[in-house]
Amino acid sequence: MLIFAPMPTISNRGGHMPPSPIRKLVPFAEAAKQRGTKVYHLNIGQPDIETPKAIMDAVRHVDMKVLEYSHSAGFESYRKKLVEYYARNGVNINHNQVIVTTGGSEAILFAIMSCMDPGDEIIIPEPFYANYNGFATSAGVTVVPIPSGIEDGFALPSIDAFEKAVTPRTKAIMICNPNNPTGYLYSRQELEVLKEICLKHDLFLFSDEAYREFCYDGKEHISALSLEGLEQHAILMDTISKRYSACGGRIGAFVTHNQQVLDTAMKFAQARLSPPSFAQILGEAAVDLPADYFDGIHAEYDLRRNTLVNRLNAMDGVLCPMPGGAFYAIARLPVDDSEKFCQWLLESFSHNGATVMMAPAAGFYATRGQGKNEVRLAYVLNKEDINHAMDCLEAALKEYNK
Amino acid sequence: MLIFAPMPTISNRGGHMPPSPIRKLVPFAEAAKQRGTKVYHLNIGQPDIETPKAIMDAVRHVDMKVLEYSHSAGFESYRKKLVEYYARNGVNINHNQVIVTTGGSEAILFAIMSCMDPGDEIIIPEPFYANYNGFATSAGVTVVPIPSGIEDGFALPSIDAFEKAVTPRTKAIMICNPNNPTGYLYSRQELEVLKEICLKHDLFLFSDEAYREFCYDGKEHISALSLEGLEQHAILMDTISKRYSACGGRIGAFVTHNQQVLDTAMKFAQARLSPPSFAQILGEAAVDLPADYFDGIHAEYDLRRNTLVNRLNAMDGVLCPMPGGAFYAIARLPVDDSEKFCQWLLESFSHNGATVMMAPAAGFYATRGQGKNEVRLAYVLNKEDINHAMDCLEAALKEYNK
Repeated sequence: MLIFAPMPTISNRGGHMPPSPIRKLVPFAEAAKQRGTKVYHLNIGQPDIETPKAIMDAVRHVDMKVLEYSHSAGFESYRKKLVEYYARNGVNINHNQVIVTTGGSEAILFAIMSCMDPGDEIIIPEPFYANYNGFATSAGVTVVPIPSGIEDGFALPSIDAFEKAVTPRTKAIMICNPNNPTGYLYSRQELEVLKEICLKHDLFLFSDEAYREFCYDGKEHISALSLEGLEQHAILMDTISKRYSACGGRIGAFVTHNQQVLDTAMKFAQARLSPPSFAQILGEAAVDLPADYFDGIHAEYDLRRNTLVNRLNAMDGVLCPMPGGAFYAIARLPVDDSEKFCQWLLESFSHNGATVMMAPAAGFYATRGQGKNEVRLAYVLNKEDINHAMDCLEAALKEYNK
Repeated sequence: MLIFAPMPTISNRGGHMPPSPIRKLVPFAEAAKQRGTKVYHLNIGQPDIETPKAIMDAVRHVDMKVLEYSHSAGFESYRKKLVEYYARNGVNINHNQVIVTTGGSEAILFAIMSCMDPGDEIIIPEPFYANYNGFATSAGVTVVPIPSGIEDGFALPSIDAFEKAVTPRTKAIMICNPNNPTGYLYSRQELEVLKEICLKHDLFLFSDEAYREFCYDGKEHISALSLEGLEQHAILMDTISKRYSACGGRIGAFVTHNQQVLDTAMKFAQARLSPPSFAQILGEAAVDLPADYFDGIHAEYDLRRNTLVNRLNAMDGVLCPMPGGAFYAIARLPVDDSEKFCQWLLESFSHNGATVMMAPAAGFYATRGQGKNEVRLAYVLNKEDINHAMDCLEAALKEYNK
């Protein structure tokens, strides 16, 4: 027994890595389920929509003797298909401008690693997708948040706010459009503001467009890669996860017109050899889904969005701006600390044998103390379940605030 | 036309990323094929062995409605299966000590990121797997190479060589056992030397055991994770790629008894959400392959090894130590610059309509100028093709040295 055995220590970078704000309440949810409480999961962006059978079948019918490495940039046949896909979405590229990545996550990492050095700064409107913090920490990059406000529905901050945040170390601006966690969809005018500031200060624009197809109220999605004059600055970080309900596939894409950035990202891509083969087959089949594939899904999410947001705003003291895209909403609740409230919902509350799990919003802010009375809700359940979940929340707020 | 458009610059880190030494001759190979020359690929560790049908079928029969994220550490059922697999290989762990990774590549990245900060040093006997350089560069970590020599068959450097390389910034030693690119299999005595030095200086031992099953001449593989007293220091970085000829699956594992390291690596794992689902199903099925699965493969590789190495050593001025494991060998050739020679083989040479592609060894050394007259050969072709390839090489050396 080596009681005084030496023990090497973890890295500071590892110590600073933020734990996932979405997953840290999981043990409380598991305990609730063990007590027999039904938990409505509005905490995580895992769609309940079936993965299209046609694309699962493409994998089921795979005809390969040897499961070989693919090209480090992904199968050429898949990249050529993606050219078609992007052309349909107003983005004109060739297949050598696409690197297939292991999920959108790896596209984000390649963008940061290829364009930024330790100590460099990236401006991100907050609240933002929490894992941006993790990728920035692992790359030694500093996130400079600028606030977007719930009263403005989380619109793009003013050009002045960006100007004030720019320093000699600023290398990039990162956006998620439509936005996770706010659901905000940037307008052409807002993208033009981003273009202006990027050109003026020669900054990269990293654009996470994972939710491109999820836009409501007849609004159009505009890709950063379609902005004229921004070709050398814009990098698209994409994923098939939400688009085709294929989160477990781990296939994304890194797309840019900037050849030097592509060459650099390819070196990171070569170091990890190749993206997963099976899900590339699935992704390639997905480009050939019927043109009306998204129509039904779109109608379903629109219904869920209206149900959720209308129910939330009907509750005393709750504010939830109507999101224009994605499948998330941020709500301000009449509570002091939404993390305590979310934990209490799982630990100490039930309504008709059920409770609701949400993501405390503080983890989506880089500024400490921000978002403490907000939660993020993912409307990835059907209308009936959303109504049940809202019944729980409504009853819970009454009981909690007694 | 914006001729004087501004253009943001890539990162220094991206600039320093090494290009893959294995893949950079690829355009010359493609040109050779277009000229109608047959190219024998001994340059890359892509096995030609069929992926077992039973494990491909497990994916073909996948019964999932929604391709969901898995747990960030991988499916629990798969991790439990891996516990069985490791127990059969002398490594006793529980399923919470395993994080399923996206290939062995990600396991290497998690080890470096979790345990090392920018400026920290990692000692690696050279030549070593070239992508270690890439992962170290992306993490800002300094590789400190210590030479292993072709005359000693690439045995572990002496304990004195390690002692001389240790500085206050040293955090870890990295080995690949059996070794890529040398094929060297470390003995128990050598592992005890590594244990001694790790305990004395409180260093992590990162052990890449991708080729565990490929050991010849009746020699036994000893895992770093089975070394008594080294539980808090040893980290196993593993992959199913070579074991089951499943390189395109992108499934590996990060395994350690050190709880603090596991907790830290889990934060990196959560940031990237989950490893690919399809190949986890394949990996889980692989643990149930019949016990004699490796016997046939083993005999095949042993035959190839003997064929390749004996042919090489029969050539004038060629030295190739007999490797004890993996499916690589390093050969010293009677040429000044093996990169030029390898390019010449593809650009300007053919023998009976064929040529051979090898990996110049310089890319496997961190010390500039080392390995300039060496190549790495992967014996991933059948005996007949290896003989054809050796015919080409033999004829080429005669012509090149005229």
